[in-house]
Amino acid sequence: MMPRVAMSWRMRIPWRRRSSSRALNTLNDDAHRSRQIILSPPLVSLDIPDDWAPSPHSLHFDFPVNCSHERTAAIIDGKSIADQIRSNIGSEVRRMKESIGMVPGLGVIMVGQRKDSETYVRNKMMACEEVGMKSYIAQLPDHCTKDQLLKALSKFDVDPSVHGILVQLPLPQHLDEREIMDVLSPEKDVDGFHPINMGNLAMRGREPLFIPCTPKGCIELLLRSGVGIVGKKAAVIGRSNIVGLPASLLLQRHHATVSIVHAFTKNPEHITSGADIVVTAAGVPNLVRGNWLKPGAVVIDVGTNPVEDPSCERGYRLIGDVCYEEAVRVVSAITPVPGGVGPMTIAMLLSNTLDSARRAYAFT
Amino acid sequence: MMPRVAMSWRMRIPWRRRSSSRALNTLNDDAHRSRQIILSPPLVSLDIPDDWAPSPHSLHFDFPVNCSHERTAAIIDGKSIADQIRSNIGSEVRRMKESIGMVPGLGVIMVGQRKDSETYVRNKMMACEEVGMKSYIAQLPDHCTKDQLLKALSKFDVDPSVHGILVQLPLPQHLDEREIMDVLSPEKDVDGFHPINMGNLAMRGREPLFIPCTPKGCIELLLRSGVGIVGKKAAVIGRSNIVGLPASLLLQRHHATVSIVHAFTKNPEHITSGADIVVTAAGVPNLVRGNWLKPGAVVIDVGTNPVEDPSCERGYRLIGDVCYEEAVRVVSAITPVPGGVGPMTIAMLLSNTLDSARRAYAFT
Repeated sequence: MMPRVAMSWRMRIPWRRRSSSRALNTLNDDAHRSRQIILSPPLVSLDIPDDWAPSPHSLHFDFPVNCSHERTAAIIDGKSIADQIRSNIGSEVRRMKESIGMVPGLGVIMVGQRKDSETYVRNKMMACEEVGMKSYIAQLPDHCTKDQLLKALSKFDVDPSVHGILVQLPLPQHLDEREIMDVLSPEKDVDGFHPINMGNLAMRGREPLFIPCTPKGCIELLLRSGVGIVGKKAAVIGRSNIVGLPASLLLQRHHATVSIVHAFTKNPEHITSGADIVVTAAGVPNLVRGNWLKPGAVVIDVGTNPVEDPSCERGYRLIGDVCYEEAVRVVSAITPVPGGVGPMTIAMLLSNTLDSARRAYAFT
Repeated sequence: MMPRVAMSWRMRIPWRRRSSSRALNTLNDDAHRSRQIILSPPLVSLDIPDDWAPSPHSLHFDFPVNCSHERTAAIIDGKSIADQIRSNIGSEVRRMKESIGMVPGLGVIMVGQRKDSETYVRNKMMACEEVGMKSYIAQLPDHCTKDQLLKALSKFDVDPSVHGILVQLPLPQHLDEREIMDVLSPEKDVDGFHPINMGNLAMRGREPLFIPCTPKGCIELLLRSGVGIVGKKAAVIGRSNIVGLPASLLLQRHHATVSIVHAFTKNPEHITSGADIVVTAAGVPNLVRGNWLKPGAVVIDVGTNPVEDPSCERGYRLIGDVCYEEAVRVVSAITPVPGGVGPMTIAMLLSNTLDSARRAYAFT
């Protein structure tokens, strides 16, 4: 049975941005800018947020799709792949300990007491322990100052037993995430969010020290499932710094032909339905319908959206950006939610931390 | 009349990479990598170069195109737009001099005596003079050492009268361009090639200090020609660090839906023919035929390819990546080659240098 939120989405897509007046303003901004190039910074006014929202219009598709009544897709088991990677990392950590007497260390900075952040941090630290890595936490109060946060960061930065530093996001509003991330040493940026690591990921002939964990996990899922990427058409839905952007850059490094779909894209289904590989990270439940997908495509669903479900103990359950029930009848392989991309994120964090320790100790 | 090289391309496209075995090797690399994730750096093996080469196959298009016999496209006059920008920059430099007694300064590092590089450098320095900026040149011999080059760079870096530093590329083979660019101060990186500037261009909510000149010029041509970018489908052909990559990132910042076409793309014409805006930077003469373009599209042709032409004094003339004679009958607007994007590159270099001086002197 489709969950409640999903049903309401079914009625309302195609989604659009909540207000079209903002787009018009942007067009005016463009014209204004063109007269003013040497007087104003060029991009500020264009950094308007993606605002994925449904429109009241009904659903129209002008292209058919081969949709069988049977589930035909292979399910990409992220949990089992992540378990295998974690087990390999555990072996490597043991080998490092036996060879040089050192283990990788992860420093986590946590500001405030958000329940979800606490859960994420606890899971990351437990995962470290499980593979034999050390983890350290700097827990700061919600009202901490920028200087207190920078001091905690600097302490991890100079500590040779800490090879990766992770600032749990989001930070409280009074702290500027960019400012904090900019002072994080790129050599310990195991989240891969420092602009110099992102720039080196984007540029040909260069190598970032770290690749952001979730998109790195997406590519691993494809490769370990035997999906070739070279020469394939890929659509990435969403363009966040954390997933969409680095996923598109990674797919391109693997020589896919990448199209990036976002909230301003008209007829996104025309692009996704031509793609051999679809990576969705929009954060909109059931955004991608069966009709959006090419028969035989491979779908990596990064969305993790809570929807009400009284039959679950917690009162809600998690669903992806892709309407799973429809997609499994169209595509050749798909990640489930939960149990697809999710478990890979922590596995890749451990992999990045291990890589960092290897570099620090020149351990091969 | 079509030039000679153009005719031979006409017979031979669709182009393909010179060897398909390399793609197969890459697929094997993928599989190998998937078994080895924690043992090998993740991206090295995939950084194979784009190798745009024709295949012996004949030309097949399975879609029609409305191609009139008349030229209907507006010609985007890059030279006149660039002249206007340079004139505005000249006024600003005068205003700066009158207000604070300072002018922007550009430091150029030139290694060796490549004829083309000498011409480019001369043109850039003349352009500086014309708008009242100062320019300085560090001319190093072809066999100079890395240390000599770094010393010249460092001299400009600490000189407060130099606001922009430009290392004329390509460097001789014994010098590693990446290593040199990495030590260039991002605050004086007027070419916008430093990875931290590229990362900040890629990431939402961030601002690079400088945007690479040629793609910045492409966007200016679009905006100043009244072409809206928001919500448009854009295809970028080529993914070089200098043009294709930053052009795709810039178009995306302007909320276009961007697809990146490269030498591994199958049926690139299927992507380009759906695009409202096509930016080509492949370096392949007449790669983009009339059939590749959507009627009414806007084409920005960054290609500057010399082709034999005995009727020209120099024995050759420059043509773009787009088959101009065909395109002007299909699209609504197009840049000519020469006289389109070319003149914008130097104008944007002056604009970046002026911006840098403004920042240095807090001059608004």
